[in-house]
Amino acid sequence: MAVGEFELIEEYFRQGGGGLGVALGIGDDCALLQVPAGRQLAVSMDTLVGGIHFPKNADPELIAERALRVNLSDLAAMGAEPLWFTLGLTLPEADKQWIKGFSEGLFRVANEYNIALVGGDTTKGALAMTIQVHGAVEPDKALLRSGARAGDLIFTTGCVGDGAGALAVIKQELEVGKSAFNYLMQHYYRPEPQIAAGSLLVGLATSAIDISDGLLADLGHICTESGVGAELRLEQLPLSDPLKKLVPREQAFDWALAGGDDYQLCFTLPKQNLPRLEQLIDQHKLEAHHVGEVVQGSGITCLHKGELFEVGSHGYQHF
Amino acid sequence: MAVGEFELIEEYFRQGGGGLGVALGIGDDCALLQVPAGRQLAVSMDTLVGGIHFPKNADPELIAERALRVNLSDLAAMGAEPLWFTLGLTLPEADKQWIKGFSEGLFRVANEYNIALVGGDTTKGALAMTIQVHGAVEPDKALLRSGARAGDLIFTTGCVGDGAGALAVIKQELEVGKSAFNYLMQHYYRPEPQIAAGSLLVGLATSAIDISDGLLADLGHICTESGVGAELRLEQLPLSDPLKKLVPREQAFDWALAGGDDYQLCFTLPKQNLPRLEQLIDQHKLEAHHVGEVVQGSGITCLHKGELFEVGSHGYQHF
Repeated sequence: MAVGEFELIEEYFRQGGGGLGVALGIGDDCALLQVPAGRQLAVSMDTLVGGIHFPKNADPELIAERALRVNLSDLAAMGAEPLWFTLGLTLPEADKQWIKGFSEGLFRVANEYNIALVGGDTTKGALAMTIQVHGAVEPDKALLRSGARAGDLIFTTGCVGDGAGALAVIKQELEVGKSAFNYLMQHYYRPEPQIAAGSLLVGLATSAIDISDGLLADLGHICTESGVGAELRLEQLPLSDPLKKLVPREQAFDWALAGGDDYQLCFTLPKQNLPRLEQLIDQHKLEAHHVGEVVQGSGITCLHKGELFEVGSHGYQHF
Repeated sequence: MAVGEFELIEEYFRQGGGGLGVALGIGDDCALLQVPAGRQLAVSMDTLVGGIHFPKNADPELIAERALRVNLSDLAAMGAEPLWFTLGLTLPEADKQWIKGFSEGLFRVANEYNIALVGGDTTKGALAMTIQVHGAVEPDKALLRSGARAGDLIFTTGCVGDGAGALAVIKQELEVGKSAFNYLMQHYYRPEPQIAAGSLLVGLATSAIDISDGLLADLGHICTESGVGAELRLEQLPLSDPLKKLVPREQAFDWALAGGDDYQLCFTLPKQNLPRLEQLIDQHKLEAHHVGEVVQGSGITCLHKGELFEVGSHGYQHF
């Protein structure tokens, strides 16, 4: 009973202050927010549970970074501009040191991506956090899962498979040297939400999703929602140098396809938009790796140098 | 591993369908929402943890009802009109019966208050749920905690103390007959968010808050944010007949003042607005009980028939 809920919030979470369109922030029954004129609001909520989505004993700064970054990734996947977020934080005890570290990590990311904390709740219970992110997007311009058409090219904005590699290290299923360890942990706790990429792809890509459950599962959502199939060319999958050195190529493919936690975007692009994409790659440092094609029908075919590839496992299931 | 996260969501939570301003609901990386023209968005997030905020073995329909009703109460306290909500649901196992009951209770309340489920997350872990409600309010018209002025009258929209009485029954600290049991459980699991009252009080009340932590704690927030004090006249507190029959008056006062879970509004009103309030009471069935006055200074004085009353306990602390 040493520290009350309200003091906790006052002390560590009120530093958010202003933010675009925040008429009233933390401290009343509701926050009052003004969506930029002529824009739609994009919202996404994610819950991360200690012991399931991250190790309970992980550094609270990193837990906070990961939680907010993973949520921002959903705004990126819609091509939305970050505005505000709310935080529901459940803690087994009111540990000041832990909360201090958590709030430092949280506001570091919030400042980096220009997103303001506007409200939330702090409760006692098993370690978990729910974040809702709010972004702005022009009406009818958001990147949906449902716009892919047969003939579109499939891209990812960066390497896939590192998320699963990191998880194997955390679960002590894979032993690695210091440099690979640092690379993978950095990737796991500090994934880079592809906000800039998502924004650049508005009006260009026909569909997009962030790769949280594995390329197969997430591209599968695009296929289902768009009523199409897909062919992936595994030799074109962007794999990081550390991953390529750590495990056999087949294992890397498995992780890239079925691992998850990569938080790159997977998007589809009509061939006629290729010149504009290349322009963006040149002029805005957009990263895009061509990994396959959208085809008629349904389901995803994985080809490795023209041969069918059997994936060893399936997308992450929460139950 | 019998039921996957996505199937769960599909089957039980997609029934939400449309709703005012829902451009895109459940099923993509974000929901896309259109705030009504010329309105501000009011948002509030609450987390309810099994074993802390409700008994883990409670009927899932009632848990859902309570969770959404409690969140709607925060919109009521701002005078906001309900629009949308999101749900982060964490469950120890994917129990279909439980989820079916939960979703039935949830949509019953959602339909009653015309609020659409637009997104969320389902995860495995200790039983808990985070709900964020979104409402619309005219700019500069929301009921804040900060507008009370010395001389204003203090009101509640209904009985206080029943929440604490119900909790005493749940904790088996109080034995009651069947009729009182039903009354208190109904109150605990199905509190009535004062949406209509909040809406009627816009432009009339100078401040408002919903009574979740007890009248003293919540009126205390109004006092702190408004820079004023308050005097309560306990003989004027609205107590329910069941409560008055169950416990000595002093215990009922304690519960009313420091118990919480009542979800009535406490609001302040300039004396010159009294005729308009009485008109609303007559014409719109608004309930309002005059319980005290706002005074200069700080802190809350409790008087019982003119004598100082010492409150036996303090507001609910989550830690």
